[in-house]
Parts: sequence; structure tokens; C-alpha cells
Amino acid sequence: MNYYVLSLFPEMIEAGMKTSITGRAIEQGIINLYSINIRDYSKRKHNQVDDYPYGGGAGMVMQAEPICLACEDIRNRIGRSPRIVYMTPQGRVFNQNIAKELAKEEELVLLCGHYEGIDERVIEKEVTDCISIGDYVLTGGELPAMVVMDAVSRMVPGVLTNEDSGADESFEGDLLEYPQYTRPQEYEGMSVPEILLSGHHANIEKWRREQSLLRTAKWRPDLLEKAELSKKDIEFLKKTLAE
Amino acid sequence: MNYYVLSLFPEMIEAGMKTSITGRAIEQGIINLYSINIRDYSKRKHNQVDDYPYGGGAGMVMQAEPICLACEDIRNRIGRSPRIVYMTPQGRVFNQNIAKELAKEEELVLLCGHYEGIDERVIEKEVTDCISIGDYVLTGGELPAMVVMDAVSRMVPGVLTNEDSGADESFEGDLLEYPQYTRPQEYEGMSVPEILLSGHHANIEKWRREQSLLRTAKWRPDLLEKAELSKKDIEFLKKTLAE
Repeated sequence: MNYYVLSLFPEMIEAGMKTSITGRAIEQGIINLYSINIRDYSKRKHNQVDDYPYGGGAGMVMQAEPICLACEDIRNRIGRSPRIVYMTPQGRVFNQNIAKELAKEEELVLLCGHYEGIDERVIEKEVTDCISIGDYVLTGGELPAMVVMDAVSRMVPGVLTNEDSGADESFEGDLLEYPQYTRPQEYEGMSVPEILLSGHHANIEKWRREQSLLRTAKWRPDLLEKAELSKKDIEFLKKTLAE
Repeated sequence: MNYYVLSLFPEMIEAGMKTSITGRAIEQGIINLYSINIRDYSKRKHNQVDDYPYGGGAGMVMQAEPICLACEDIRNRIGRSPRIVYMTPQGRVFNQNIAKELAKEEELVLLCGHYEGIDERVIEKEVTDCISIGDYVLTGGELPAMVVMDAVSRMVPGVLTNEDSGADESFEGDLLEYPQYTRPQEYEGMSVPEILLSGHHANIEKWRREQSLLRTAKWRPDLLEKAELSKKDIEFLKKTLAE
């Protein structure tokens, strides 16, 4: 997977991605990260890239030209038209299915806006996908791009080792994770649930599944509606929630 | 606002927050960022902080003790019990209202998990809020903590200047943003909508409102249901969507 990130703060992207699992995947060459400074494509004095919005209003808008030139440059480098994802609250709300979908691409361009956003004509001309990571206002698209790259990279074959999390599979089932415990067995008067010490794998699996169902029912009933539930799951929930 | 971030990758937090608007607010002392390495509270060899999960399964779980000791240390430093927010897909889904709510605190502790998560007893003993930034799986809580800090900081008085975005107000109305344009007036054969060049402020406001309504209706009808709409808005939508 080759990521091309268009941003005004490429050093922020570099610093954020060199850590932990994505950092290891970059070192191993399983993913490549090209952080591109949009300013490098400005033809104005001091490499300016923004200007006042037509029609008035607070804030500045990023101009079309430097962004379009940067996109053109990427196309020339790779010899084809990649998906160009603009990070914006206007976009499709990112989720695990979109992460899986994007992980199939060979390259992804992630466009990070700043200030009041980018000139709409960039979206018309260049952007193939608008993606939002959630319903909140952020200073720029850099953190969202890193979030997307983190989630997508975990779906790229070879990035996760056996020792890494199996949490992905868990979330795929659209249920929240069961509680986890590690040593010591007793901490500040709080004990690990006995079932987890029993060594009885089938019972442990059953308990974990039930914990996931209960938590999801309690905290995210919206997920439960979409989740794939077995007959057993449904019976368990009916019985327990009735009590 | 004082942020205390508990993490295994404090340098990632520092690098991510020193940029742009949050970076300026830190320099000005409007917000303070204390990145705390959980490893510093480990009593084990090589400052280890994780161990195998009870009951088996892939991955490692972060142990309770170092995290609880770090929380205790923060309480001692500030002389009271702050809100301790654990970043987890199990949590309440973060949005602009939660950002506003958290911005009222004087200090916030943000706890970043890694691997398969943290020992459940930390959540029982220490955590006051569980927050998720969206329905996707990430490597750790670091990016989510930065996302929360960015959104919350923008709500802290003094962080945004007049020149900064007014996007916050727009999102508060639960509508998507209208399209933005800046110079040049024509770019690659694409023109700025004429209304924006008219200088007629009332008409421009009306057009922008309508664009916001249309985009929200098209891309995020779920937001429209919760949005505060005037009679005029509703009439416009009915008429336009009927066409």
C-alpha cells in the first residue's frame, strides 16, 4: 500500500505514522508513506495556498491550483489515476467496512484540508471519495488521515502479526469487545472473574460472547440491530434483558 | 485546560499536538499538555506493562498497576480527582456536544490503551468516561486522544481567534457545510457560482443555507432529522426534493 498524503503539515503526518504497528510496516516496506507539502505546488509569494472566500465569511479557503498540481504530479509519478480521498465532515462516515474496502487499493491519496476547507472545484475535479471520521469539528484533515491510514493499514496483508490484536475480527461481528484481564489475579481487592481461570475453553468462549452481547445491548444498541446474531445469542439476550 | 495523556507513545502525542491551532494555544499557555509514559510507573523488568490475557486469546493486555499508579500521581499533583477518559471503541461515540461538555473541565486525563486493551479493573477503579471516536479499529488510543484534544481545545475560550474557522457554529446547527470558493474566479473552465460574486449578502446567506440543507439531505439525512430547521428550511427542502 502506498499512501500519498497532501497536507500543509507533512511533518505531523510523518511523526504520527512512524510509531507502533504502522511504523513497523513502513520499515518493512509493506506500506509506504509519502507526505507531500501542498505549499511546494504554490506559485505565489511565500508559497501561499489560501485566500478569502468568495461571498464573504470568516476564515480562509485553500486554493484549487496547488492541490490540483499536486494530484497531477502523483498521477504522473505512478502512471495512473488513484483514488483521492478528501477528509471532510461532509463525507461518508468512516467505518471498518470502508477500511477494508480501501485496503484493497494499491495506492491512496489522502487530501487534508485546513482553515475553512478547500475550493469546491478541487472536489469536482479531483476527489473520488469524501470521508469523515465522525461528527466533530477538527482543525485540519491531518488527524483524520492518520486515523484512516491506521485502520486501513491493519487490513493490509502482512501488517499485523500473529501477536497483534485479534480485535479486528471482534469488531467485524459488530459487537463490542468483552472485558479483558491480566495478572495479577487480585488487584486492590478486585478479582479476575473465576470463569477465566477455569481453563474450560468452551465456557470461556460462551462467557466472552455473552459479555460482548450485554455490553453492546447496554452501550450501543444501534450496533446490535446490524450485528449477525445466532439463535443462541438472541435467546440469551431476551432472557437476560427480561430479568 | 490541562491535558494529562497517559500513553505508551508520549512522543507521538507531543508531535501531533504541537502543530497549528493547538500548538499555538500550548505556546500561549491557554492549554497545557502533559504527556505521561505509562512505562514510567512499571515496577517490572524493562518497564514492562503488559501480560497475557486470562482465559487465553491473541494479543497482550495492559496491566492495571502502572495505569492506576499514574492516575494516583496525577491526583496528587493537582489535588483533586479529574475526569479520566478512556479512549475505546466500547465508549460513547464522540461528537461536537461531548467536545463542548469536556471543554468545561479544568483538567482532563486521557488514557490511551494499546494491544488488546487494558485490564478491566482499571476501568472500574479509575475511568469516569469511555469515549470512542468512531466504529473502526485502531492500533492504540493515541490518535483518538489527539482527535478529542483537537476538538475540545477549539471549544476552550481563547484558543480560536477571529480569523479561525467559523465552521464550529455551522456544525452546531447539525448541517453540513456549504461549498466554498476562493480565487481565481475561473479555474480550468470551472467558475465560481455567480451569486457569490453578487455582493448581495442576504441572497448569499440564503444560497449557502440552501446548499447546506441540500447536501445534508443528500449525504447525511440522519443529521437532518436532528437539525434545527426553520419553516422556510422545511418548505425549501420539500419543494426541492419533490422536483
